Amino acid sequence: MVSAKMYELGTKKSTIRTIFEFGRKRAAEVGEENIFDFSLGNPNVPTPDFVRDAAIDILQNCEPAAVHGYTVAPGNPNVRETLAKSINARFGTKFAGKNIFITSGAAAAITICFKALAEPGDEFITFAPYFPEYKVFVESVGAALKVVKPRPEDWQIDFDDFQKLLSDKTKAVIINSPNNPSGAIYSKETITKLTDMLKAQGQDIFLICDEPYRELAYAVDVPWVTNFYKNALVCYSYSKSFSLPGERIGYIVVPDEVADFDKIFGAVAGAARVLTHVNAPSLWQLVVAKCAGKAVDITPYERNGKLLYDGLIAAGFECVKPQGAFYLFPKALEADDYAFCERAKKFDLLLVPGADFGAPGYFRAAYCIKTETIECSLPLFKKLADEYRG
Amino acid sequence: MVSAKMYELGTKKSTIRTIFEFGRKRAAEVGEENIFDFSLGNPNVPTPDFVRDAAIDILQNCEPAAVHGYTVAPGNPNVRETLAKSINARFGTKFAGKNIFITSGAAAAITICFKALAEPGDEFITFAPYFPEYKVFVESVGAALKVVKPRPEDWQIDFDDFQKLLSDKTKAVIINSPNNPSGAIYSKETITKLTDMLKAQGQDIFLICDEPYRELAYAVDVPWVTNFYKNALVCYSYSKSFSLPGERIGYIVVPDEVADFDKIFGAVAGAARVLTHVNAPSLWQLVVAKCAGKAVDITPYERNGKLLYDGLIAAGFECVKPQGAFYLFPKALEADDYAFCERAKKFDLLLVPGADFGAPGYFRAAYCIKTETIECSLPLFKKLADEYRG
Repeated sequence: MVSAKMYELGTKKSTIRTIFEFGRKRAAEVGEENIFDFSLGNPNVPTPDFVRDAAIDILQNCEPAAVHGYTVAPGNPNVRETLAKSINARFGTKFAGKNIFITSGAAAAITICFKALAEPGDEFITFAPYFPEYKVFVESVGAALKVVKPRPEDWQIDFDDFQKLLSDKTKAVIINSPNNPSGAIYSKETITKLTDMLKAQGQDIFLICDEPYRELAYAVDVPWVTNFYKNALVCYSYSKSFSLPGERIGYIVVPDEVADFDKIFGAVAGAARVLTHVNAPSLWQLVVAKCAGKAVDITPYERNGKLLYDGLIAAGFECVKPQGAFYLFPKALEADDYAFCERAKKFDLLLVPGADFGAPGYFRAAYCIKTETIECSLPLFKKLADEYRG
Repeated sequence: MVSAKMYELGTKKSTIRTIFEFGRKRAAEVGEENIFDFSLGNPNVPTPDFVRDAAIDILQNCEPAAVHGYTVAPGNPNVRETLAKSINARFGTKFAGKNIFITSGAAAAITICFKALAEPGDEFITFAPYFPEYKVFVESVGAALKVVKPRPEDWQIDFDDFQKLLSDKTKAVIINSPNNPSGAIYSKETITKLTDMLKAQGQDIFLICDEPYRELAYAVDVPWVTNFYKNALVCYSYSKSFSLPGERIGYIVVPDEVADFDKIFGAVAGAARVLTHVNAPSLWQLVVAKCAGKAVDITPYERNGKLLYDGLIAAGFECVKPQGAFYLFPKALEADDYAFCERAKKFDLLLVPGADFGAPGYFRAAYCIKTETIECSLPLFKKLADEYRG
């Protein structure tokens, strides 16, 4: 009577959701302050005042029809120009407004790209650990997702495994740097080697760069991929940088240099249409243009990351040092990461198993939470580790 | 290299777009005031002050994380409760928050319903004249759209033709009342007969009510369909009533009484997920809750509709009297409505051929424009009609 697939996608509880519900239940029993919930990737740094002030200024001073009217599907032309200039100033590129397609956040941006590109039989490749919705979104457009095995020593790319998965079926490669869940940032060397391998293939392969965490980089450069490779599509969201995840605002950069710009931009517009993203929310288009290029204070995340990392290392965990985003991805203290996360629950430490991200044996700890919560959690991580040491 | 279908959907220029571009070109030549553009269905009554004030109040006084954070997929629970109560107060229903799924506008709402319900081989039925995106959206979810022929005497339903299209393949019926493009409102009699016919079918058939124009009704009652039929899903948008088309905010009502509520609500959530509507824009969720039930002044549309209708009748056109929305759908003065609209262009009257809406021989004139533009256009409609009379 209904689509069985949609029912399954709408009702199957995710691991994170299950952990979240457990946390709410425990909080009711033992008090909010005794629950150490590292499960959710919600930004906890408040939206900057300049964003709020820009929104109020637009509401008070601009003509309502200009603020709230439909925009053309790719977005307000002036906003697209402003965003292109802002990108150019930061990365030495030469984009114009026509290279920007404004979207309702990054989930829409990447899925619009997937749907625009996918033809029957196509394969998309990504790298573990990876955001699990990639699989849902890629399969929803009729393509298959192939996953390159993780490289736990630094969470860069296992190129040997990548080479094995590349084929004439490969339509696109998806990267996410800074990475959820590993916190790694792909180095210039990684991006160079990756793009060299793509160039060596016989066909045009698109590199879809999912970059909601671009601004959350701690003294590490995040290479701008269109400077390395012509067939790169950059997907951005203001969810994390401006703490606006609920407002759904981001964009796709489609460079002139991509193989057949008109075809790709046209297909992007068609995909946005059938996914019923009529236009990205119009007020927020104006707000992000007004705030383009403004710096965001990421020190709260950096401080939290260092605190948690140092604490876990002191407790005996193995973990790659955080470079960006707001996640640590340490090694679990037993091979079965689900069992490990269950055991951590005894201490009210709520962690997400790495297997959910295609990297069993690890766990994700999101540190976009109160610094005090991290401080109070460290003795518990120590106790948990002590238990394992017997 | 890209999806041929997406490219086609993203680049094929619609008739309305072509007319719009012609209008821009002519305006540059002869001046904006000499172009009489009846082609676009954009609300021209400004967003009410109470909507702007609500948005500013929320931005100034609420905690940013509560305003701009992710909401759960069906929307903020308090907002859903408020909207349910507001609907109950108006229509004598007994909905709770769990019956409301907040969406990014009506295009998303209807397409989420289509995708939630569609199984291979399914047919959806709608009634000409109809919004042409229905065909795109229904086909995008893998179903077929069947169109009941128009009933030009009053733009109600041709039930004989409807009966012919009903079959065991029929999954859902789509109605749009007040109607774009006819301006008709389905009467209580029409809704009663329609739902009686659906009840007489052997299987559960869903009635998807696309109601962005519900508030734009001129002294005519718009029947609330869940009071007539248990398998009705009501899709609403604030685009027209609050003049917020660019902000993408609306909802779906899923009554408890539908055949298997849990299945349908679950499938709706799955469809929203793969269409990447993570949540409806969070600020606007709060704004519409704060403004729930507030009355909107529709007299500017009513005045415009009467002015244009009286003028066209005086010029010799045949037209059903407007009941709602902001469109007239008169008979063209020759059988070929495309040729008629081309001829109207000579007078800088920009009209949309009825064939675009599945009703050849008619044309759509949107009167959500300046009253002065309508006044100045009337002598030109007269001249156009005189030409036809020779």
